[in-house]
Amino acid sequence: MPVQPPPAAIGMAVADVDTPALLVDRPAFERNLRRMADFAAGAGMRLRPHAKMHKCPAVARRQIDLGAVGQCCQKLGEAEAMVAGSIADVLVTNEIVGAAKIARLADLAGRAQVGVCVDDAGNAADISAAAVTAGTALDVYVEIDVGGGRCGTDPGKPGADLAARVADLPGLRFAGLQAYHGSAQHICPFDARRAAIEAAGEKVAATLEALDRAGLACPLVTGAGTGSYAFETASGLWDELQCGSYAFMDVDYRKVHDATGAIDATFENALFVLVTVMSRNKPGRAVVDAGHKALGNDQGMPAVAAEPGSGFEGATYAGPSDEHGTLMLATDNWMPPLGAKVRLIPGHVDPTVNLYDWFVVVEDGIVVDLWEITARGAFR
Amino acid sequence: MPVQPPPAAIGMAVADVDTPALLVDRPAFERNLRRMADFAAGAGMRLRPHAKMHKCPAVARRQIDLGAVGQCCQKLGEAEAMVAGSIADVLVTNEIVGAAKIARLADLAGRAQVGVCVDDAGNAADISAAAVTAGTALDVYVEIDVGGGRCGTDPGKPGADLAARVADLPGLRFAGLQAYHGSAQHICPFDARRAAIEAAGEKVAATLEALDRAGLACPLVTGAGTGSYAFETASGLWDELQCGSYAFMDVDYRKVHDATGAIDATFENALFVLVTVMSRNKPGRAVVDAGHKALGNDQGMPAVAAEPGSGFEGATYAGPSDEHGTLMLATDNWMPPLGAKVRLIPGHVDPTVNLYDWFVVVEDGIVVDLWEITARGAFR
Repeated sequence: MPVQPPPAAIGMAVADVDTPALLVDRPAFERNLRRMADFAAGAGMRLRPHAKMHKCPAVARRQIDLGAVGQCCQKLGEAEAMVAGSIADVLVTNEIVGAAKIARLADLAGRAQVGVCVDDAGNAADISAAAVTAGTALDVYVEIDVGGGRCGTDPGKPGADLAARVADLPGLRFAGLQAYHGSAQHICPFDARRAAIEAAGEKVAATLEALDRAGLACPLVTGAGTGSYAFETASGLWDELQCGSYAFMDVDYRKVHDATGAIDATFENALFVLVTVMSRNKPGRAVVDAGHKALGNDQGMPAVAAEPGSGFEGATYAGPSDEHGTLMLATDNWMPPLGAKVRLIPGHVDPTVNLYDWFVVVEDGIVVDLWEITARGAFR
Repeated sequence: MPVQPPPAAIGMAVADVDTPALLVDRPAFERNLRRMADFAAGAGMRLRPHAKMHKCPAVARRQIDLGAVGQCCQKLGEAEAMVAGSIADVLVTNEIVGAAKIARLADLAGRAQVGVCVDDAGNAADISAAAVTAGTALDVYVEIDVGGGRCGTDPGKPGADLAARVADLPGLRFAGLQAYHGSAQHICPFDARRAAIEAAGEKVAATLEALDRAGLACPLVTGAGTGSYAFETASGLWDELQCGSYAFMDVDYRKVHDATGAIDATFENALFVLVTVMSRNKPGRAVVDAGHKALGNDQGMPAVAAEPGSGFEGATYAGPSDEHGTLMLATDNWMPPLGAKVRLIPGHVDPTVNLYDWFVVVEDGIVVDLWEITARGAFR
C-alpha cells in the first residue's frame, strides 16, 4: 500500500465521496487562477506560483497554461516531483544544504530549468562544484532577509557581495534576488501589511544599489505572497510573484483586510475537507472523522462550510484529537444523521494538503477529476 | 513518485542520513517494548498496542513477538495496512460509518480477526448486514463514554441495551466494552490522573452491572493508554491495555508525573526527528529544515536532544513555518556549521509519525534497518 487509493471515482456524486477527502471546487479554483493571472499580466509581472501549497503537478500545469512561468518549490523533493510531473521550470525558494541533496539538485538541473537560493558563500561553492561534476548549470538567487528573520543574508552590501561570489562560480548563473516576506502575509490590517512590504522594499532597493555599485546586473527580483502581492507589484522593485494560497485559500487568509477594512474577497475558498458524522450521542454535538491527521490546524481551526438547509449552519469545529473533531452545533434541538457529510474550510491550506494523496475535483455536485498530490511528504 | 524514497541505507552512519528523517533508537525502543510487555504479563493483562501511533507493521510484529495479542487501529485504512502487513488480529477502536467503509470492514474480517466499536444501534445493524453479505463475522465492542466526551454511549443501561442489540444481530459477536479515557492520559499530576481513571472505572462497573442484569456476559473490557494503564490495571475492571506512545514517547508524555511528583521515567524517548542546519546568519539562531510539515506540533514544540559536546546543549526549537524551524541557541558566541545535524524529540508522536514514510532504525550510530510506515495517511 505505497500510496492511499483515491476516495472517489470520476462521475461519482460528491455525496458518495469517502471521507476525509480534499475537494477542489473547480469553478472557484479556475476563477482564482484567472484573477491572479489577469492581475500579473495587467501589471507586467511574471507569476511563478508556489507548489508548496498544492504539491500537485496537475495544479501547476493549469497555472502554467494560464501564463505562469513555472513553479516555486520549498523543498528539493517537491521540485523533483514537479519535474517528474512535466514542469520544466522550477525555483527552489530555499537553501539546499548537504552533499546528497546538492548532488540531487545539480542532477535535476539536467532535466529542467532549475533555480535555487543561497545565503552563504560556502554553500554556493558546494553547489557550483556539484554542478560542474554533473555538467549542469543552475540559476542562483541570493536570498536577502527582508523582514522575516529566517533565512537570507543581510540586505545591501552583504547580499551584493554574495551575488559577486555566485557570479564568479562555474556552473552557476546569478539570477537575481529572493526577497520574500513570509511573516507579512498574514498581517490583517491593510496599512500595517503595506508598511511591512514597504520596509522590505527598502531592503531590496539597498541591495540593488549595492549590486549596481559592484557593477553587477540583477536579472530579477522575486518574492511576494497571496497576502502582499499587490504591494510588491506597486513598488516597482519586484519582477516576479510567488503566490501560492490564492488558488485554494483557507480560513487564515480570509482574515486579511483590504483597503476598506473589509475582509479581502479577491480570492474564493476553493478547497474543502469533506468529513462525515461518525458519532452523535450528546445534544448539540456531533463527532466527525477528521482531526489533526486530516487538518493543518497550526494557524487555528477549520471553519464549517454548511450547505444551506443542511442543518449545519452556524456550527463550529472544536476539540480535535488525532482522528476526531467535534462539531458544536448551533442548536441542541437538531442532531445530524449518522453518516451526514459536511465540508470544512482548512485553517491553513499548506499543511492540510500535505496530509492527503488526492485532490477530488468537483463541479455541480459531481466528481470531475482526481489529481494525485505527488509531492505529498516530499520534505527532503 | 508514489511514496518518498527512504532517507538512508542500511549500514550508513547516522551522520549521513538525509533529513528530515525519523530515527528509531533501537535499544531504547526494545527496552520500552519489554517494559510494557513485562508489566502486562506480570499483571495478567492482555496488551493490544495502538497502531495509530506507529502506523508500521514492522513495529506491530515486534510487539506481537513480545506477547501482544494484536493491534488497535483508529481508522479502517490503518487496519487494512496492518492486515496487509501480516497482522492477524486488529481492533478498530472507533466507529466505522458509511456503506463503503462498512463493506470494506466486513471484507477485512475475511482476512483477519477484526473487531470494531459501535455506539449506535443503527450502525450495528448496518455492520451486521454487511457481514452477512460478505459471509464474515466481526467482534463488536460497545464503546462507552468514560469521561472523554467524544464517542460512546452513556455508561450503564444505554451501553447494556446496545450490547443486547449487538448480541442479537447476525454476523456480530458482542466482544466486550471499549472504555478508553483519552483526555485523562495527559493529566500531569498523578492523583488527578488516577482520579479520572477511577471515575471512568465507576462507569465501566455500572455498565458491567447493567450487562449482568440483562443476563449478558461481557467477554472483555479494553482501553487504557500510556498515561494511565497502571490505574486501569489496578482497578481490576479492565482486561486489555491499548497503549501506543510508550514504544517511542514524546515531549508531551514526558510531562506526566509519577506518584512521587517527578516526571514519570518508565519509558524512554526512542524516536527522534533528525534535522539539518540550513541557514545561520544571525547570532544565537540557526534555521533547520523541519517545520509544521515534518513535526506534529499540536501539543507544543519539539525538544532539542543535543549530543553532549555538540554545541546544541540548551537550544530550543521555536517559530516553525511550513518547512523551517529556528533553533534558539544557548549562546550568541557559537554558531553551528551549515549542514550540522541535530535530533529533536517530537512534541506529539502520533501526528509526527504520520508525516513520514520511513523509520530509520539506528543503533550505535549506524542505520540497522528501514521500516516502511505503510499506514501513513491511512485516515479513511
